[in-house]
Amino acid sequence: MKKFVNDPKDFVPEMLKGIALANPDTVKYVPEYNLIMRTDAPRDDKVSIVQGSGSGHEPAHVMAVGKGMLDAACPGDVFSAPPMDYVLETTKLLNSPKGVLHIINNYTGDRMAFDMGREMAEAEGVRIGTVIVDDDVAVKDSTYTVGRRGVAGNFFVIKALGAASEQGAELDDLVALGERVNSVARTMGMALTSCTPPAKGSPLFDLGDDEMEMGVGIHGEPGRRREKLASSNVIVDELLEAVVSDLPFKKGDNVALMINGLGGTPISELYLIYGYAHEQLASRGINVARNYVGEYCTSLDMAGVSITLVKLDDELTSLLEAPAEIPIRVF
Amino acid sequence: MKKFVNDPKDFVPEMLKGIALANPDTVKYVPEYNLIMRTDAPRDDKVSIVQGSGSGHEPAHVMAVGKGMLDAACPGDVFSAPPMDYVLETTKLLNSPKGVLHIINNYTGDRMAFDMGREMAEAEGVRIGTVIVDDDVAVKDSTYTVGRRGVAGNFFVIKALGAASEQGAELDDLVALGERVNSVARTMGMALTSCTPPAKGSPLFDLGDDEMEMGVGIHGEPGRRREKLASSNVIVDELLEAVVSDLPFKKGDNVALMINGLGGTPISELYLIYGYAHEQLASRGINVARNYVGEYCTSLDMAGVSITLVKLDDELTSLLEAPAEIPIRVF
Repeated sequence: MKKFVNDPKDFVPEMLKGIALANPDTVKYVPEYNLIMRTDAPRDDKVSIVQGSGSGHEPAHVMAVGKGMLDAACPGDVFSAPPMDYVLETTKLLNSPKGVLHIINNYTGDRMAFDMGREMAEAEGVRIGTVIVDDDVAVKDSTYTVGRRGVAGNFFVIKALGAASEQGAELDDLVALGERVNSVARTMGMALTSCTPPAKGSPLFDLGDDEMEMGVGIHGEPGRRREKLASSNVIVDELLEAVVSDLPFKKGDNVALMINGLGGTPISELYLIYGYAHEQLASRGINVARNYVGEYCTSLDMAGVSITLVKLDDELTSLLEAPAEIPIRVF
Repeated sequence: MKKFVNDPKDFVPEMLKGIALANPDTVKYVPEYNLIMRTDAPRDDKVSIVQGSGSGHEPAHVMAVGKGMLDAACPGDVFSAPPMDYVLETTKLLNSPKGVLHIINNYTGDRMAFDMGREMAEAEGVRIGTVIVDDDVAVKDSTYTVGRRGVAGNFFVIKALGAASEQGAELDDLVALGERVNSVARTMGMALTSCTPPAKGSPLFDLGDDEMEMGVGIHGEPGRRREKLASSNVIVDELLEAVVSDLPFKKGDNVALMINGLGGTPISELYLIYGYAHEQLASRGINVARNYVGEYCTSLDMAGVSITLVKLDDELTSLLEAPAEIPIRVF
């Protein structure tokens, strides 16, 4: 296994420890519940925003904790939902008079853990709202999902809700805003290679040297179909068409365009993809008003990419522009 | 070849176009000379800072152009030095009354191209200073290098010189500062896998399934030795020992610690490495005052890591803290 790992069972805790050591002023690691939270959370004047999911999608979500983004992330092991009692404890730790908002990507395991954690926390008097993210247009129902999967569009839900919560928005308004952002976000991804979970030690699925998986899920779930490798532009054409036609995005729309690497794809290739995608959208009369090129929601070391479009309006643009600070940074 | 590529000969220009389309307010692409430059360069009140090198190391250096960093980057094709006439034209385009500073990583091809480009530009009246970066402690002399190689420590030279040049520093002072930063920066890297240049279409070198290359170069040059795969902590121990003992870094030193992914290593693994490296330095009495975890200087899709330490003083800390804006960003 060509990975930086010690004992695979320590993979997630060792990563979380590293995040906290690198950002001692802004986040802390709580080993008892395997969580990362802001050092200044919970705050009485702010709804606490929590996301949980399996690990292996970094920087989502444990590196998205900070001012203007998440108040805490509650990760499970690699590709496993967090235990419901950790969801409960995270929710209680983050309890604020203004309530706690759960953002959940639409996977059956995550939803079950959060449903149960929510029920138990509500029984203890915590007020909770829930937003489900399901932006992946590739397939309806999937290996681990009823309905569509939640993938990289999740970043925009977190960013908008994080900004609005800093501005004092109430729980109900945040739920409505989160649903609205999710309703205008669409993503499709594809894989050139499989990925290797540390505890498995070998690729999660097999993909031939001359094959790619169009519409792949971020846990290696099958997509729309497997086909022969194609050039970058051909791949981008198919991803864009699937995403644009789904909402649909129309001539005159202002959009945010995200080119998201799945973990093993160099940033050089992501910018090559961006250039072509930007031009293709322009030729359809769709204006890329904001762009995001890099890794936002990965699948371990998978070589691949997803493309997300979000339809912008003035409110959403302003929330995306608001300042934010998380462990992922250059300087 | 599992890469996002169209015609391999267009790989670099298509990437550069993408960078410029994603950052139209701050950088522009000049196709005639295959360069990326700031939209506001050259400025009369500022030395222009230029770096050139082969491509394939992104974000170095074409995505490091912007306020407080480079004024222009002059890339060659993948793992090839830029042509000397492009160095000349870039230097002329960036000419400022305060002069032009060349930052060059120590590879024979790059030094030749920049030596000749400098000579021709000086003949046309441009005042030029040069800083050579050679922070790699792995080996002295290498496949493409006489002396030590320049690798990820380059980021700190750019950051410090970019900040100082924004504050109006003169050319000679910048040369001295760059040499000083290079003199306190030390790096060593290692590879778990090879990398695949687009034009070659197959791995650059062979590395067995159970092997790793300690001290690898960022073009796949041999390092100190090839050995059996080891756990992350064992790898980090060897890299840290090589780096710490070289300067040497001592008890009581304040340092910047960079954990740099070589292109195919997930950020989860880089943070796992960071946590252990931070603790090991602390146990030696070395204080990590600033940290950098991510991709800064890569080798295409190579899975691997390098560790850089820079000894800090008040001036250098202040230059590293100064604001900067480049295409690589999260929000």
